Amino acid sequence: MRLATLRNGSRDGRLVKISGDGRHYADASAVAATLQEVMERWDELAPRLEALPEGTLPLDAAAVLAPLPRAWQWLDGSAYRSHGDLMDQLLGIKVERSGLPLMYQGVSDRFYAPTEDVVMAGEEFGIDFEGEFGVIVDHVPMGTSAAEALRHIKLLVQINDWSLRTLARPEMQTGFGWVQAKPPCSMAPFAVTPAELGSQWRNGRVCLDLEVHWNGQRFGNANGEPMEFGFHELVAHAARTRDLVAGTIIGSGTVSNENFREIGSSCIAERRGIEVVDTGAAKTGFMKFGDRVRMQAHAADGSAPFGAIDQKVVSR
Amino acid sequence: MRLATLRNGSRDGRLVKISGDGRHYADASAVAATLQEVMERWDELAPRLEALPEGTLPLDAAAVLAPLPRAWQWLDGSAYRSHGDLMDQLLGIKVERSGLPLMYQGVSDRFYAPTEDVVMAGEEFGIDFEGEFGVIVDHVPMGTSAAEALRHIKLLVQINDWSLRTLARPEMQTGFGWVQAKPPCSMAPFAVTPAELGSQWRNGRVCLDLEVHWNGQRFGNANGEPMEFGFHELVAHAARTRDLVAGTIIGSGTVSNENFREIGSSCIAERRGIEVVDTGAAKTGFMKFGDRVRMQAHAADGSAPFGAIDQKVVSR
Repeated sequence: MRLATLRNGSRDGRLVKISGDGRHYADASAVAATLQEVMERWDELAPRLEALPEGTLPLDAAAVLAPLPRAWQWLDGSAYRSHGDLMDQLLGIKVERSGLPLMYQGVSDRFYAPTEDVVMAGEEFGIDFEGEFGVIVDHVPMGTSAAEALRHIKLLVQINDWSLRTLARPEMQTGFGWVQAKPPCSMAPFAVTPAELGSQWRNGRVCLDLEVHWNGQRFGNANGEPMEFGFHELVAHAARTRDLVAGTIIGSGTVSNENFREIGSSCIAERRGIEVVDTGAAKTGFMKFGDRVRMQAHAADGSAPFGAIDQKVVSR
Repeated sequence: MRLATLRNGSRDGRLVKISGDGRHYADASAVAATLQEVMERWDELAPRLEALPEGTLPLDAAAVLAPLPRAWQWLDGSAYRSHGDLMDQLLGIKVERSGLPLMYQGVSDRFYAPTEDVVMAGEEFGIDFEGEFGVIVDHVPMGTSAAEALRHIKLLVQINDWSLRTLARPEMQTGFGWVQAKPPCSMAPFAVTPAELGSQWRNGRVCLDLEVHWNGQRFGNANGEPMEFGFHELVAHAARTRDLVAGTIIGSGTVSNENFREIGSSCIAERRGIEVVDTGAAKTGFMKFGDRVRMQAHAADGSAPFGAIDQKVVSR
């Protein structure tokens, strides 16, 4: 099952169910008004959404919001070791992992719609994209184990975790994590149930290629599988000392593979890191106002389960 | 004007206006259902709340929730230098400030009611309280200056920012900030307008003594004034690269004064830091299950504008 949220003038939009071809929808208002409501009553409402007839109403891409246009909690990991090691090298910071997943809490009162212009404070802050996967959970009680956490993962999403790189290093050095370096994220149109991915959801990982284009040029095509920690482990980490509110979104961090020199990267900072390692200096610049980024994950059958993020960066 | 939120079975409770004596309330449902709604339409609704008659209904302390029982955003600073310097020493971490305020984003989907039991994952995590002040803003556009930010500060609150100290250091070392070390906070009963404090709100600071008792013993009585950065500067810092959603809460960090040896501390970690500096070892332990903490700020006239937090820590 795939779900989406359409613009209706409210902050949370209205919930719809997406057809198999990804081009039509069925009204879901008889089941729930918003996706947040579904996350709060998943066990009761999900079967009723599954039972809705195949949608026949034509989907207008411009009317699609993020599946959760706002969420009570957004916790982002950094679970791809090939990315993390390179970023440490680039930032000149030795991140002490202590065997635990890396995670920070980010702004969640707004997630950009997949085709919405993204307003940035300034080019001088080093505007970068980060292609990621994420999960949305129902209520997760404090102390839930990784094994138990797997069944709380109800939906999968695809995210662009926008980053401002020149602000990232000083914020990391405080030990307090990022505020200024992490403006709101964007989400691809469709939230999909794990079952929808079949065997490409395994071991708590979204095993799809995430294709990234920057201004029409292919920039990367990394696969989501090689996470050091699976999503269930990230959920358990987050829930160690708090209940996770239903509708919490947990991110993977920038998707990255060891062979990034061949397949490319899901963020500019990683490419710059490779350039520093290989040539002693970064030559690729960050994004400029007017630049576009497109991100689309591909399943083995060629389909794009999450739809595409395709956005322009603009000045305020 | 002082506002509070009463338990009514919903997650956001119902808004009431508090009487001058702090023991009575007036129903405010004709103006707005919740405080979040007021923050979203402050300029329109605040004058109507001011115009409500003095409350005559008796207030039941057990029925009072946090003024915002959940918020879309909670950003906590660490603006008291006497505390920060000592904590650096205790943690053995040199926090690089770069001239900027320290700030992290914390869990905001739940704020404990002022007399509610606080459920902690384990005593072994080093359960600590942190007495703070905070502000609630209306919508703050990205790029708002500190001078402009002052007029977005609509309400002041008193907070206990619960901390798990043994988890704090490893999370700081990642540079990603705290997730596990920062479970949900508690809030004192009343949110007050800056005007309510008269000259004790000045230069973006809450200039009240914050009296803290741990298990009936006075632990600290620091004054809120000596913030290195005022709340308006914290708001501007937070809004540098994002719009702040109406109802965002921004915290001061643990209230601390230079003469902490005489007046005491607003958290256990600070007292332990003093013990380490003075004797080479910390002798005060952290909280145990069953322990209570009481926090109440006092105005010059002896009144307690925010009411009191008085809670017990319990096991899950």
